Amino acid sequence: MSKKLTKRSEDYSKWYNELVVKAGLAENSGIRGMMVIKPYGYAIWEKMQAQLDKMFKETGHQNAYFPLLIPKSYFSKEAKHVEGFAKEAAIVTHYRLRATADGKGVEVDPNAKLEEELIIRPTSETIIWDTYKRWIQSYRDLPILVNQWANVMRWEMRTRLFLRTAEFLWQEGHTAHETKQEAVEEAERMLDVYAEFAQDFMAMPVIKGVKTETERFAGAEDTYTIEALMQDGKALQSGTSHFLGQNFAKAFDVKYTSREGKLEYVWATSWGVSTRLMGALIMTHSDDNGLVLPPKLAPIQVVIIPIYRKEEQLKDISEKADEIVKKLRAKGISVKYDDSDNYKPGWKFNEYELKGVPVRIAIGPRDLENGTVEVARRDTLSKEIVPMEGIENHVEKLLEDIQTNLFEKAKKYRDEHITPVDDFETFKKVLEEKGGFVSAHWDGTPETEEKIKELTKATIRCIPLDNKEEEGMDILTGKPSKQRVLFAKAY
Amino acid sequence: MSKKLTKRSEDYSKWYNELVVKAGLAENSGIRGMMVIKPYGYAIWEKMQAQLDKMFKETGHQNAYFPLLIPKSYFSKEAKHVEGFAKEAAIVTHYRLRATADGKGVEVDPNAKLEEELIIRPTSETIIWDTYKRWIQSYRDLPILVNQWANVMRWEMRTRLFLRTAEFLWQEGHTAHETKQEAVEEAERMLDVYAEFAQDFMAMPVIKGVKTETERFAGAEDTYTIEALMQDGKALQSGTSHFLGQNFAKAFDVKYTSREGKLEYVWATSWGVSTRLMGALIMTHSDDNGLVLPPKLAPIQVVIIPIYRKEEQLKDISEKADEIVKKLRAKGISVKYDDSDNYKPGWKFNEYELKGVPVRIAIGPRDLENGTVEVARRDTLSKEIVPMEGIENHVEKLLEDIQTNLFEKAKKYRDEHITPVDDFETFKKVLEEKGGFVSAHWDGTPETEEKIKELTKATIRCIPLDNKEEEGMDILTGKPSKQRVLFAKAY
Repeated sequence: MSKKLTKRSEDYSKWYNELVVKAGLAENSGIRGMMVIKPYGYAIWEKMQAQLDKMFKETGHQNAYFPLLIPKSYFSKEAKHVEGFAKEAAIVTHYRLRATADGKGVEVDPNAKLEEELIIRPTSETIIWDTYKRWIQSYRDLPILVNQWANVMRWEMRTRLFLRTAEFLWQEGHTAHETKQEAVEEAERMLDVYAEFAQDFMAMPVIKGVKTETERFAGAEDTYTIEALMQDGKALQSGTSHFLGQNFAKAFDVKYTSREGKLEYVWATSWGVSTRLMGALIMTHSDDNGLVLPPKLAPIQVVIIPIYRKEEQLKDISEKADEIVKKLRAKGISVKYDDSDNYKPGWKFNEYELKGVPVRIAIGPRDLENGTVEVARRDTLSKEIVPMEGIENHVEKLLEDIQTNLFEKAKKYRDEHITPVDDFETFKKVLEEKGGFVSAHWDGTPETEEKIKELTKATIRCIPLDNKEEEGMDILTGKPSKQRVLFAKAY
Repeated sequence: MSKKLTKRSEDYSKWYNELVVKAGLAENSGIRGMMVIKPYGYAIWEKMQAQLDKMFKETGHQNAYFPLLIPKSYFSKEAKHVEGFAKEAAIVTHYRLRATADGKGVEVDPNAKLEEELIIRPTSETIIWDTYKRWIQSYRDLPILVNQWANVMRWEMRTRLFLRTAEFLWQEGHTAHETKQEAVEEAERMLDVYAEFAQDFMAMPVIKGVKTETERFAGAEDTYTIEALMQDGKALQSGTSHFLGQNFAKAFDVKYTSREGKLEYVWATSWGVSTRLMGALIMTHSDDNGLVLPPKLAPIQVVIIPIYRKEEQLKDISEKADEIVKKLRAKGISVKYDDSDNYKPGWKFNEYELKGVPVRIAIGPRDLENGTVEVARRDTLSKEIVPMEGIENHVEKLLEDIQTNLFEKAKKYRDEHITPVDDFETFKKVLEEKGGFVSAHWDGTPETEEKIKELTKATIRCIPLDNKEEEGMDILTGKPSKQRVLFAKAY
């Protein structure tokens, strides 16, 4: 670690950018808006992938793979969909380079122009529904429960590592169903899977809700969302699940023969989470010393560092450390013993703190004498001396505690930052000074939503699924409203 | 299964194309040369990925992710590299669509032309070495042992499912080293990993060798290869590992301060296998009834099918089947009990044969009386009656036998199809009539290699690593030669 991180209180945005780079998670490539995900960052993403993939399979889904490039004409078949994505489409127009006349470089070969331009997928509904048309004839072919892990491209103008990049990695589930009810249930089921993943693995509390028409996915009838709150009081949409109705089935003419022998359009859902979750994970837990990782997603859960002056001490310490490593591994805990002599213990302490390793064990000569080790936890930065005997049980318990503590802490912060507000002045003030979600009445019109956004930069994050009905007046227009919705400034 | 497959003896190529589609492995999308990998095919690929990934990690590699798009100028920095890939480059020139004047469609927005065109990666050496330049300053930063799982694009003119597609999935390892020796050892180590994977998991014998200059990867000093033999006598290059020398370090100016304090260029390797392995797997083992899968890569290792007339019989059979399922799963065997009533047992037998499920267990009312089951193995198509008691041990052993048998069978065929030849007439005759590898003397010149290719369509697949020195005369020119090389027609 070359120098200290900027403090969150000084410049939250700078803190985030520095942290992502210094902790070895990702960096900007030489290409506008495109990132390199570095090994440590990718290792966290792999843990997320593995868990999500398991949950998708447990709910009956299979993986498949569809083409990266989508013909412009497919892309245009669903009107709202193309409108939503046209402005950020990366377009392949040629398929060959040739040597320049001077022989010194290469240029696009004008003779290799594609008859029809191809779009790099920003999402795959169109190419997938073009495929499903071949797969679906009868109700016996339904449901189709397919997921794809893939890269996608949206030519965003302002980009930030993980949060908004031109290329990102994600999964996109695309399902096809006989009935509307089945599709709605699927969309809701996958929202539950996302919420469970966010809470139980990322230790990140989320609010399940439905988007307003304005914020809906381009081509969806309903977009369900999980919304999280970052430490700077801004919301982050962390996963969405869409009930697509029959829109794509109609656009691609996908019908099936029903149990009653009638030809019907197929019902659809799609749902996705992306490497954006990495940004959410980082911003939910990390502190001014660096990354803080929930144990369930930490590539290294425990690091052991020897403290010694003489080679001979190291030998004795290493012997004990190896025993501890074995015991921890036997419990399925991932552990690294860092006996490298390039750096001093103090440097290593900082480094693993920066990298968010949940538990650090230090062993020195005095520990050997006393049969103890020093155990430090990353979340609270507290240390304690613990007997070496039974250390594996202690650490196992500690990892569980850290996982729970991170969730509870984040939940406390989040709960304290849901503020019910009933007048527009307070609304603006809370958004400006306190941040977080503001729970306020809304008259249900896109016009008011837009107006509020113009005035405050806050958007309606969602209408919570567990909302209770409540008579009230729109925070801006005073028109009648039947329920509160959650506003926030958002990433 | 709608109708029988074309026989291999009738039309091998047609057999392959039909099999890939009918077994649910992959299909052509609406887009030229791009395939859809269907769930069953993708499940096999996932098993390959999981095993390879494990082997990469065991040899010290970490995963990372690099951008999909490479600026034309990066791409051009290594002269041979760009020459090798320029002719099949998919090129992004624009980043926005706009509505057409009539408002009815979308077109490329001419105002959104990129200053510099971006190439969809055909392989990632250039973007990765541009990144490594930032990562490497000192010998302490070396080695870098990184792998990427990704999609790549090569605009091939003639494409075939899995074997040659415009887009394919692969892994590409990219490593950086202090010394030449270390890099060569890495390239050889990864070739060994590929060979071990091919033989122990795909049950596919391979010959390890080195490519001639003509067949070398564009930008490599040496290309190591594993070559397999398909049932039609054609060779298939199944994985390559490249010693890149300092070519990319020089092209991207990547130097490190050595232990002696000098600035030196970094040494490099890259290595990859792709979804092409799916084609190799299919063509190595499958038969006229369909796919034959080695148990270690089969998504479903055992299928259990009930044979019954009355519902009441099904109930009794299901009870026993459930017990067997539990016992097999306890041994880590993946098993499917197919009690669906849509199809008759005969249809199911054919279907799972087509899909290459290694072991089929059938249970009928008489089996219940006798305490037996019928066990059929996919590789030999033989059946036997086996006691239900201890069936899990029998099946476990059987799966091992099948794995071994598939390898032995393929090895026997391969070994019988390596023919030493010493005159050109026989050379042509063997290639034409018998197929397989021809082991013949070669004078070491690209000119002769080219000439032989023109005359016979055979290329030098490799110079085997375990070659013995032997004085001889070139098969075509009669010029002196010091060793035999392996020629074959190839995919």
